[in-house]
Amino acid sequence: MFPLYALIMAGGSGTRLWPLSRQNRPKQMLRLIGERSMFQLAVDRLLPVLPPERIVVVTTADLLDGLAAQMPELPRCNFLLEPEGRGTAPVIGLGALYVRHLAEGEATVACLTADHFIKDAATFRRVLLAAAQVAERGQIVTLGIRPSFASIGFGYIERGAALAPEGGFEVHSVKAFREKPDADTAAAFVADGAHSWNSGMFIWTTARVESEFARQLPDTMAKLRAIAGAFGAPAFAATMAQTWPTVERQTIDYGIMEGAADVAVIPVDVGWSDVGSWASLLDILEPDEAGNVILSGNHLTVDTSGTLVSSGKLVATIGLRDMVIVDTEDALLVCPRARSQDVKRIVEQLQQQKRGQYL
Amino acid sequence: MFPLYALIMAGGSGTRLWPLSRQNRPKQMLRLIGERSMFQLAVDRLLPVLPPERIVVVTTADLLDGLAAQMPELPRCNFLLEPEGRGTAPVIGLGALYVRHLAEGEATVACLTADHFIKDAATFRRVLLAAAQVAERGQIVTLGIRPSFASIGFGYIERGAALAPEGGFEVHSVKAFREKPDADTAAAFVADGAHSWNSGMFIWTTARVESEFARQLPDTMAKLRAIAGAFGAPAFAATMAQTWPTVERQTIDYGIMEGAADVAVIPVDVGWSDVGSWASLLDILEPDEAGNVILSGNHLTVDTSGTLVSSGKLVATIGLRDMVIVDTEDALLVCPRARSQDVKRIVEQLQQQKRGQYL
Repeated sequence: MFPLYALIMAGGSGTRLWPLSRQNRPKQMLRLIGERSMFQLAVDRLLPVLPPERIVVVTTADLLDGLAAQMPELPRCNFLLEPEGRGTAPVIGLGALYVRHLAEGEATVACLTADHFIKDAATFRRVLLAAAQVAERGQIVTLGIRPSFASIGFGYIERGAALAPEGGFEVHSVKAFREKPDADTAAAFVADGAHSWNSGMFIWTTARVESEFARQLPDTMAKLRAIAGAFGAPAFAATMAQTWPTVERQTIDYGIMEGAADVAVIPVDVGWSDVGSWASLLDILEPDEAGNVILSGNHLTVDTSGTLVSSGKLVATIGLRDMVIVDTEDALLVCPRARSQDVKRIVEQLQQQKRGQYL
Repeated sequence: MFPLYALIMAGGSGTRLWPLSRQNRPKQMLRLIGERSMFQLAVDRLLPVLPPERIVVVTTADLLDGLAAQMPELPRCNFLLEPEGRGTAPVIGLGALYVRHLAEGEATVACLTADHFIKDAATFRRVLLAAAQVAERGQIVTLGIRPSFASIGFGYIERGAALAPEGGFEVHSVKAFREKPDADTAAAFVADGAHSWNSGMFIWTTARVESEFARQLPDTMAKLRAIAGAFGAPAFAATMAQTWPTVERQTIDYGIMEGAADVAVIPVDVGWSDVGSWASLLDILEPDEAGNVILSGNHLTVDTSGTLVSSGKLVATIGLRDMVIVDTEDALLVCPRARSQDVKRIVEQLQQQKRGQYL
């Protein structure tokens, strides 16, 4: 059996949790759930089944020191740096080649994210090991999340025929990947019971990664091989800096998954959340007796419920229902929980006004 | 004719505009309306008719330096310090004696507040001069505000017979002072058209002040005379410190006005507000195009109106209606405009928890 590696994508710089998340302080670095950052939680949940040497992190130079400091257990050489964002496809392709380099042979790679929440880590680990068994047979295995509502923010996976179960989990062939749908389509997907959310977690062997990239993204694969040829050599940094920016920008869903045959999905129910908005964070966290979530700060409350507060100072609220109050050193957000998707409109305004210090 | 003096009571330490107003940074010191503090505005509006020498300020030792710095025009000896709060009656009684000391003879004293807003300062000045004319005849003259709603937060003045007009203003005898009413009574007061809000502004001669105090609060008057005997003398500070704390605590309304005969009221319409809550400040201030009032700070807004924002940092709001957001160095308040009276409940909680640093 091939050794199992985790490839954690930790280069993102999302602003959906603005003003707490910023370009240089992205979601994966934040302590949103207890005392550990999202990145720490992502690694923590793997350590019972994977030694640190088998956990590879792809990130950017800007974030390297912060992430490495949060996880001193990880060998420094397990951090692979992307000089600039080229989409998820090149990251996974190169990451898989890097895993093979570290493993000194074929391996199975679980491509995971650094900024998602998984409540039931024990079940997740069992799913991961089961998925690795399925992947050994050459399949691309994706983890499908049971939809809890008709989200238009996720892609969907349509299940096909049932395959042999593995480790107690159902396994299905994938009939189709669906891009983020409109509201009616999303409602139909949820109603038919045959669709899962695409969590963006894929488990496959390095051999399968290489063959899919060679078939579907041959130019990208050639460039990734050129970079991989310099792994561990003095010329690596220069080769990477020269070649990476020429790699075609592409996502793994569009570039590989939608065109791949022989893809399996394991429907899972592990309390997954992409923590893609303040509202989704409120959904995850356990409220206090008054029904509020106090991420940080002192909260003095009169007649307030369903409200999230993050601040370094005393926050007094009166008569609030289902609000989000996020106070940072230089910026304060106040919005109803139901409007937290519109944080992106604030971020867009800041971009248009070229107020980079707030981004 | 007696010289007219203003006696501005500036010792208050209200917390109704918490967290901006604090014990050591009370409302009168705040810049709530443009670039001038409430105290500066209170003095500014008098200067066209009164020289600085005729403006006397009663305050506390804690506030003296701040107020004097805001109004360097005022002679330092025009600041009279109360060692501790004993209610408005002793302040006005001693203030009137101090005015007579400064005037070196009888004077007319307009007792005014440092933390109220008056939109139409020109009319206010004309009223003041008219009131001084009426006061010369020995009457206590009070300024009655036309009620704009059935407030239960103010005392009311019931008008009696019409007296001779003065300076173009109606003058009425006062039939009765009414304490803060319940909601039904307040509604009846507003409906009958015979009641004004008691603004707490009184104009009377020093002789009338002295005779009323001697008649109604003789013990207080004896003590105030003992203090006044030391005005300008080296023994003043010691006499004040020794005697003032023994003066009976009393308000001018209850201690003097309710028991006084021969009181007149001039009904005025000068755009008066006690600025007693964030909601009342919202009522006064001119909103921007989106209908919001930005006291300070940068405001980035998506779909927000009727909202007051005070902060030193960038404040982003989404989907808010009629909210109050007040952000200070160590405390943040978020509440609907309609609940701003409940700020006192936050202050009470802080007092109970003995968290004096926030008060």
